[in-house]
Amino acid sequence: MERVNRLIISRTGSRVTMIPEVANHLISSGGKRLRPMLTLATAALAGYRGTGHINLAAAVEFMHTATLLHDDVVDSSTMRRGKIAARMKWGNEASVLVGDYLLGQAFKMMVEVGSLPALGILSSAAAVIAEGEVLQLSAAKNTETNEDEYLAVIRGKTAELFAAACEVGAVIAERSKAEQAACRSYGMNLGIAFQLVDDALDYGGTSSALGKNVGDDFREGKVTLPVVLSFRRGDEEERAFWRRTLERADVQEGDLERAHQIMRRHRALEDTIERARHYGAIARDALALFPKSQMKTALLRAVDFCIARVS
Amino acid sequence: MERVNRLIISRTGSRVTMIPEVANHLISSGGKRLRPMLTLATAALAGYRGTGHINLAAAVEFMHTATLLHDDVVDSSTMRRGKIAARMKWGNEASVLVGDYLLGQAFKMMVEVGSLPALGILSSAAAVIAEGEVLQLSAAKNTETNEDEYLAVIRGKTAELFAAACEVGAVIAERSKAEQAACRSYGMNLGIAFQLVDDALDYGGTSSALGKNVGDDFREGKVTLPVVLSFRRGDEEERAFWRRTLERADVQEGDLERAHQIMRRHRALEDTIERARHYGAIARDALALFPKSQMKTALLRAVDFCIARVS
Repeated sequence: MERVNRLIISRTGSRVTMIPEVANHLISSGGKRLRPMLTLATAALAGYRGTGHINLAAAVEFMHTATLLHDDVVDSSTMRRGKIAARMKWGNEASVLVGDYLLGQAFKMMVEVGSLPALGILSSAAAVIAEGEVLQLSAAKNTETNEDEYLAVIRGKTAELFAAACEVGAVIAERSKAEQAACRSYGMNLGIAFQLVDDALDYGGTSSALGKNVGDDFREGKVTLPVVLSFRRGDEEERAFWRRTLERADVQEGDLERAHQIMRRHRALEDTIERARHYGAIARDALALFPKSQMKTALLRAVDFCIARVS
Repeated sequence: MERVNRLIISRTGSRVTMIPEVANHLISSGGKRLRPMLTLATAALAGYRGTGHINLAAAVEFMHTATLLHDDVVDSSTMRRGKIAARMKWGNEASVLVGDYLLGQAFKMMVEVGSLPALGILSSAAAVIAEGEVLQLSAAKNTETNEDEYLAVIRGKTAELFAAACEVGAVIAERSKAEQAACRSYGMNLGIAFQLVDDALDYGGTSSALGKNVGDDFREGKVTLPVVLSFRRGDEEERAFWRRTLERADVQEGDLERAHQIMRRHRALEDTIERARHYGAIARDALALFPKSQMKTALLRAVDFCIARVS
C-alpha cells in the first residue's frame, strides 16, 4: 500500500500546477483507499508475484477520485470527506477537467501493466459506472423507485468498481475463469453491502439519537434504500411527507427527525442493514473455492468490518 | 467511414435512454468526422490490412465528443455546432456523465483492438488533452498570454488528438518508429494549423465584412492568436480595450467591430493564417518519407483544404 500511495502522489504531478492542487485536495483528505487495497489483496490471494498490481491499484483509486470530482459537480455538493468540495474552491470547470486528467492517467497506468484483460475489465467498469450515474440522474428524487431499481443504481455507481478492483487482482495472476469470477462476485456483493451500510449511516444507523454529519442524503433529496422501504411501508400521510421533502425539496425544521421517526416505525434502517448482511454473506461464500490463507481471512474480515461500521 | 459511423451509432446505445439521446444530439449534428477520417487515412497510407482501424477511428471520435460535452460545461456554452448545447437541454449533470460514458466506451473499443501501443498513445492523449484544458483555464482571459503559451494550449487542446489519431494508424500497421513519428508529426502540425484557421474564422477571416456566427470567441473572452498578436502590437488605448472586453467581460455595442478594426490595423488575422501555413508546411514535409500514393495525395490535400477554409 505504501508503494501504491507513492505512485498515486507521483502520478498526480503535472507542470500545470492546478492539477496536483485539485487532485491532492481530495486524494490526501483521508479516503479509506478501500478499492486499491482490494486489488492488492485479491492479487495476493491469487498468488500473484509481479508488480503490476501496484499500477492497477493506483489506477482504481484514480478512477474513484475522478468519479468523486465529477459527482460533486453533478450533485452540486459543497462538502466532501469533511472538507470543502474541490469545486467550491477551484470551480466546476477544474473539477470536470482534473477528473478527466485522472481518468487519462488511470488508463496510462493500466496500459503500462500490459494486461489486455485487466484493461478490458476496468474500461468496461468506467462505462458502467457512468451509465449508473446517468440512471441515478433519471431516477433521482423519485420516491416511487423500487428496491430492484435502487439496486441497479448502486450496482453501477458503487459495486461495479469494487467488482472490477477485485477481478483484476485474479486476472493479472492469470487464475482460472472460476476464480476470476469468484473475486468479481466477492467485490460486487461487498460493494452493495458497503453502499447499503453507508445509506443507513447517513441516517445515523440504528442508534435512536441522531449523530453529527447525518442527513446529507435527506437534504440532497436522494432516494436511498431506507427511504424506498419507508415509502412502500408507509401510509398516505407519510408518503406525502417523502414527496414534499425529497421530490419538492421543501424541507423544514424538524423534518430530519420526522424522517428518522418514520424509519424507526417501519424498521427501515434495521432492514437496510439486514439486506447488507445478505450481500455480505454472498461475498463471503464467493471466496469459498479459495483454500484457507491469511489473505482469505483478511478479505472475509473486511466484510464483517464493513457491516460492523453500523451495527 | 460508413462502418465507423455504424459503429459510432451502435456504441452510443444504452438501456439508459438518456445516454443515446444526449450522445446523438451531438454526434448526429454534422460534425466533420475529421479525426476518425485521419485514423482511417493514415492506416491506409501505412498499408494496414486488418479491421482494427475502424474501432480506433470510432474511439477517437468518442474521445472528441466527450471533450466537447465537457467543454460546454466548462465554458458554460449555450450553442454547439449551430444547435443548442446538450447541457442547455439535459443539464450540466448529463453532459458530464454522458461524456464519461463515451470515454469509457472509447477505451472499451480500443481494448477490443488489442494493440497495447495504440492504447498507450490514446490514453496518454486523453491525459494531455485534459491537462491542456486545465492550462487554458488558468490562462483564460489573460491578455498578456504570449504566442508560445498560446501554442502550448492548442497543442494540448486540439493538436494532441489529431496527432494521436494519425499515429495510431501507423502503429496498428506496425510500421517503423520513423513512420509512426511521421504520422504523429503530420497530425500534430495539421491540428495546430486547423485551430489557428478556426481562430481566424471566428473573427470572420480576412474578409472585411463580418459574417454571421462570428465573434463567439470574443464574447466568451477567449484570448486566441489574433488577440495575442493584436495586443502585443497595439498601443495603450488598444490594450485597454482588450483588457476591458476580454478580461473584464465588459462588452458593449460596436465592440466586435472595433476588435475587427484593430486586428486589421495590425494584420493580426493575415498573420494568424500565415502561421497556420507554416504548420501546414511542416505537416506536408512530415509525410515526405512515404512513397507517392493516392492516400498520401489525399492527406496532403487535407492540409490545403484546412487552410483554404479561410483564405
